[in-house]
Amino acid sequence: MTYAGAMSRTRNVAVVGATGAVGRETLRVLEQRGFPVGELRLFASARSAGSAVPFSGGQVPVRELACVVREFEGIDLALVSAGGAISKRVCPVIAAAGAVAIDKSSAFRMEPDVPLVVPEVNPEAARRRPRGIIANPNCATIQIVVAVAPLHRAARIRRMVVSTYQSASGAGEAGRAELEADSRAFLDGRPPVREKFARPLGFNCVPLIDKVLESGRTFEEQKTVDETHKILEDDSIQVAPLTVRVPVMVGHAAALFLEFERPMDPDKAWAILCQAPGVVVVDEPSVGKVPTPRDAAGTDAVTVGRIHRDPTVEHGLVMWVAADNLRKGAATNGVQIAELVAREE
Amino acid sequence: MTYAGAMSRTRNVAVVGATGAVGRETLRVLEQRGFPVGELRLFASARSAGSAVPFSGGQVPVRELACVVREFEGIDLALVSAGGAISKRVCPVIAAAGAVAIDKSSAFRMEPDVPLVVPEVNPEAARRRPRGIIANPNCATIQIVVAVAPLHRAARIRRMVVSTYQSASGAGEAGRAELEADSRAFLDGRPPVREKFARPLGFNCVPLIDKVLESGRTFEEQKTVDETHKILEDDSIQVAPLTVRVPVMVGHAAALFLEFERPMDPDKAWAILCQAPGVVVVDEPSVGKVPTPRDAAGTDAVTVGRIHRDPTVEHGLVMWVAADNLRKGAATNGVQIAELVAREE
Repeated sequence: MTYAGAMSRTRNVAVVGATGAVGRETLRVLEQRGFPVGELRLFASARSAGSAVPFSGGQVPVRELACVVREFEGIDLALVSAGGAISKRVCPVIAAAGAVAIDKSSAFRMEPDVPLVVPEVNPEAARRRPRGIIANPNCATIQIVVAVAPLHRAARIRRMVVSTYQSASGAGEAGRAELEADSRAFLDGRPPVREKFARPLGFNCVPLIDKVLESGRTFEEQKTVDETHKILEDDSIQVAPLTVRVPVMVGHAAALFLEFERPMDPDKAWAILCQAPGVVVVDEPSVGKVPTPRDAAGTDAVTVGRIHRDPTVEHGLVMWVAADNLRKGAATNGVQIAELVAREE
Repeated sequence: MTYAGAMSRTRNVAVVGATGAVGRETLRVLEQRGFPVGELRLFASARSAGSAVPFSGGQVPVRELACVVREFEGIDLALVSAGGAISKRVCPVIAAAGAVAIDKSSAFRMEPDVPLVVPEVNPEAARRRPRGIIANPNCATIQIVVAVAPLHRAARIRRMVVSTYQSASGAGEAGRAELEADSRAFLDGRPPVREKFARPLGFNCVPLIDKVLESGRTFEEQKTVDETHKILEDDSIQVAPLTVRVPVMVGHAAALFLEFERPMDPDKAWAILCQAPGVVVVDEPSVGKVPTPRDAAGTDAVTVGRIHRDPTVEHGLVMWVAADNLRKGAATNGVQIAELVAREE
């Protein structure tokens, strides 16, 4: 769904981290969704500054971010994806310049006065932003909540077990490049290439994303729990995650084992999901039709399939979701938030 | 552990499906574990017959399987991995010739008068084989039961949620070759290569292994449930599986969410697993030490890590297992069964 038709005037847009994996995808999504961009100001680190990036048939120069109010003057909306440390500094600066900062990092997500928004799920939350900052959730969490929110509303999820299958690009362009290099090395019988990941990722699965907490969970796993609670505004949902990096370039997937409070069955879930915003049901496994991350890559859909009963618990349901982590898991969700803000007036 | 020392005389061994992925690994494992092989008779389909396979410094000719009693006369033990259809025909013939058939296919696994054996878990079951057939479990199931059996004995598993990460070689040598071809095609920007899998597997995850049953589960998923029950001799364990093919050449992994009847915690699980036969604990995630399928490949260990509490249920535990599906998941388990039989006298 595109909201461009409802937006009466152009907005001046800044993209911070414009040359990264999410930043580049953000520019593509702005174009593809026809967002009414007035001025476009691009920022990156000193390394990328001075280059130019194609947009709408022209070339837009990339500036080095100085993190001062002046450089965001006249901007309406800033899409930020440059890592947590930079977000912490730049988002308040953007807000001070009078713009709305839409931040992809985890820096502000759990702050009580910063809304955490998935437009299909909690669009109204975007309006309450006393600090001028709106947080864009974790890539794995976004696709999960898009798929489970309508089911939760219908029958309330009591507990959810989640195993993820997360692509290399979740660790940025460097992660994707490392998977490509290590895969070629593996195929050619050369030594492993490893820097970003805990173990070589080519033709491998690595059950460790981000640092380990005292609880034994990783930070990535804890994000899945906390962000699901915040977006669904229900801390009582029990979420048990294990997050795993898999050798996929683009596209995250997850196995979901849902336990509902009230009756839920595959037919009912099908009917709800077929009408759910942002969801595409791909579920004819008998003829090989299942969602996969590679098929979801390049699209904005959260694809859902393998929907079937889990007979081991009351009102149990198993399903599988896959989506493009750079698009719906990051850039598209950010631009959708920008659309919500642009439609406010 | 090698039982060779306890075996007083050589045994005449047949390998049926000697040129397949599991058959070739079986020959390597027989050599590596020092199994006292007397005569070695190798069988394959007409396509591979006439070739020769290296063993113990010599070359052993590969014969075309005719499926008659005569060709197994004088054989003590036959290791069969040639697919279910051939197993159904050849195992009774092997037994009629007076040999013990150790079958890798799913053809006999759920037959009440055929034991289903994982030597670390239920070695005693191998003695009760009225039909002369012993079944070797599904590759994903073997590594799961090796890891959970000692915990189950200590605190009884009430429910187990399982998401698998299964390698291409689980679909045989053709599966492994297809993953290699499709991966190269993907990297070179050529069209996908797909025949064995429901969707192209290169840099992808495909949540569909084997055919779909009426219940919505796949046959692979139902095997995980039924075989776990049979091996652990406890049908009351609730098993909720989703089985997924991942772009790994060799090595299966699984995320396990265990709910125990009696108290169980990570320290207790660690202590039990560190002493469990066949298990190697690889669990220092803070320094990047986690089990991965690529690290487990080529070994006989069931590696276990990411052991931590699941606070969403009483006595809940999360862990991750990885093992070589061609070795412990197939060839090694089969040779271990052969060792059990050889030690009987």
